[in-house]
Amino acid sequence: MEMATADLEQLGQQAQQASYALGLLTTTQKNDVLLAMAAALTAQQATILAANAQDLENPQVPEKFVDRLTLTADRIADMATGLKQVAALPDPIGNVDHAWKNTAGLMIAKQRVPLGVIGMIFEARPNVTVDASALCFKTGNAVILRGGKEALHSNQALVNVLRGALQAAGVDENAIQLIQDTSHATAEKFMQLTDYVDVLIPRGSARLIQTVLAKATVPVIETGAGNCHVYVDQAAQLKMATDIVVNGKVQRPSVCNATEKLLIHAAVAADYLPTIVQALRDQGVEVRGDARTRAIVPDVIPATDADWGTEYNDLIIAVKVVDSEAEAIQHINRYNTQHSEAIVTDNYQAGKVFQQRVNAACVYINASTRFTDGFEFGFGAEIGISTQKLHARGPMGLVELTSYKYVIDGNGQVRQ
Amino acid sequence: MEMATADLEQLGQQAQQASYALGLLTTTQKNDVLLAMAAALTAQQATILAANAQDLENPQVPEKFVDRLTLTADRIADMATGLKQVAALPDPIGNVDHAWKNTAGLMIAKQRVPLGVIGMIFEARPNVTVDASALCFKTGNAVILRGGKEALHSNQALVNVLRGALQAAGVDENAIQLIQDTSHATAEKFMQLTDYVDVLIPRGSARLIQTVLAKATVPVIETGAGNCHVYVDQAAQLKMATDIVVNGKVQRPSVCNATEKLLIHAAVAADYLPTIVQALRDQGVEVRGDARTRAIVPDVIPATDADWGTEYNDLIIAVKVVDSEAEAIQHINRYNTQHSEAIVTDNYQAGKVFQQRVNAACVYINASTRFTDGFEFGFGAEIGISTQKLHARGPMGLVELTSYKYVIDGNGQVRQ
Repeated sequence: MEMATADLEQLGQQAQQASYALGLLTTTQKNDVLLAMAAALTAQQATILAANAQDLENPQVPEKFVDRLTLTADRIADMATGLKQVAALPDPIGNVDHAWKNTAGLMIAKQRVPLGVIGMIFEARPNVTVDASALCFKTGNAVILRGGKEALHSNQALVNVLRGALQAAGVDENAIQLIQDTSHATAEKFMQLTDYVDVLIPRGSARLIQTVLAKATVPVIETGAGNCHVYVDQAAQLKMATDIVVNGKVQRPSVCNATEKLLIHAAVAADYLPTIVQALRDQGVEVRGDARTRAIVPDVIPATDADWGTEYNDLIIAVKVVDSEAEAIQHINRYNTQHSEAIVTDNYQAGKVFQQRVNAACVYINASTRFTDGFEFGFGAEIGISTQKLHARGPMGLVELTSYKYVIDGNGQVRQ
Repeated sequence: MEMATADLEQLGQQAQQASYALGLLTTTQKNDVLLAMAAALTAQQATILAANAQDLENPQVPEKFVDRLTLTADRIADMATGLKQVAALPDPIGNVDHAWKNTAGLMIAKQRVPLGVIGMIFEARPNVTVDASALCFKTGNAVILRGGKEALHSNQALVNVLRGALQAAGVDENAIQLIQDTSHATAEKFMQLTDYVDVLIPRGSARLIQTVLAKATVPVIETGAGNCHVYVDQAAQLKMATDIVVNGKVQRPSVCNATEKLLIHAAVAADYLPTIVQALRDQGVEVRGDARTRAIVPDVIPATDADWGTEYNDLIIAVKVVDSEAEAIQHINRYNTQHSEAIVTDNYQAGKVFQQRVNAACVYINASTRFTDGFEFGFGAEIGISTQKLHARGPMGLVELTSYKYVIDGNGQVRQ
């Protein structure tokens, strides 16, 4: 049943109220709570697993959701480890980015503060409940979680454990709240709770993210979709190119930083195409290609126009032969999702031009697109990968969950 | 007449196309164009003034718009000076915020890039056309301008001059485009041009900004509304408090960083209220107050609940007596627009608590709220004052018109 607007507003008010207190906690206080949450997850494992079993019993859960929805003792232990890792990370809150004296003699300091209240909208992965709560809490943000209906019992159990740890520590438990009603109507109201929610972060399928972008009036950080390209330049080391393309495509094909498209310079296409097609097929990849590709390797499946804009998230790749780096860049800027793009080349100039002109969060020379990841980047955490240009771009760690304020000390200055 | 969607999309495509080239211009190239624009404004002053006269002849222009709409030789000279000042500012594009080597040996650099295409929506001030164009151009962004209908001829003339300077320099003139149709229907379509516009910045009345927030699907940077408070603490120097309150209220009452509300600690209210009320009235300010204020100064006009949330932009102030700093902070966080807030106190602890707990872009100790301004902050420019927490908060200068990308150099790394 749809949640009443007033009830949702109350959730928002509670989150906002909690956020004021959260912003004042010391780093030690926050870390202690995170460690207590980790211990509580382990201690209350049986309750969590029982709730998860309830979710899994639901015959309406699509088969493809079962794996990501399933919790085990190991997966709960992983969540607890994750909480401990977040506790060990440096706390950005209170840091001064820079400080200066203006001409009137005011001391101005730009200081990191929490965003306030973060709304997370996600699908059937209960681990997001714990991850997102930990990262928001560490950065002094209250979080309102709206997970998928398939995981409702699991999410309720997990949030109960986390809130219990907050309460035991004397912290307002409304720092972490779960929307118990998973209807679309309630989700839409949530996306418009501008008085209380400072930012929405959707995590999940392209469809989920598009829905949030279309319906939300709260500012959104767009995450996720990745139609990532590798361009093999005429000056590429071809063995390296194969390693990079195969790794990008097959190492974990379902994720957003997987390679989806291969562009090959015409000067090396005749030599290279048979090799790379074979290497991909050896790993079970379906290869599609444009006419020039098929002129060289005839049994490649024809690629249609729709292929160029599609994120397969699967063992499929589409290949196109281009006459120049400029054509490769133009193709990428037309079809990409501004996520991750790579060039393989030993020509320094070609590499730097590619990095400068390709419009994407992460642009690689001679490396796999799979590195676009908060952990690989050394952030120690990741709340998602932003594909927009506002606020945060690419992997988002703790500092991307903060804002800033100017704190200004005067001694009676007035404006002339 | 409403503009066809296809025509608006073409405008967007042209802007996006221009933005790719803009991102590649050197700082010297950009500065030369800005100086050429300044010269062209002066050279073509007669044409601009004639177009402005056409706007001013329109009998439907509201009286209150006439001053801001009127151009003179002096005002055109000011615009030219503004362009030269922007040329003299440092260029953030290409700067590396930081760079590091990850555990796989990848060299990762976080580098400043343009946002891409910026949409500016504003009212009857033709100077915004030139200011915004200069700041967007300096930061390598294409801009699409949608000004108020009252200023259409002036804006057309100004944009023609700026585009002429672009063309003469061999730069794609679609770096600066004006939406010629000022209907609301076209404005709404513009706000939803997500494929081509990276960010919308509305500048003007609270109503304009609320409309953009409600209708836009393009990310918006919310600017402007300022319901700014001064809290006079029990440990305030009262003479200093008077200077700060009077300056904040009367120096330029129509702007967003003007002081709108005065909170006074009960311990000093009986002593201080008669003085400050008199000082404000001496400057023509209408003083409204809560019951406790009126118990001390009986002829103060009663403030209603609506007053606390209202930005007057006029010579009006509302006064409230509070029992503690905590009550002052709670009141501010309930009613403010997160713009600028000040405490007057000689108690260091009280000042720092206020700065930490008040939720606003700029929080002052012992200074006027009027200092919230890109020029006063030393940014050398200002595109607006953000009252949101995402991306930019407070005065926005050049760097706030940029995004970043990660450029990553490898030598064959693949993900394990």
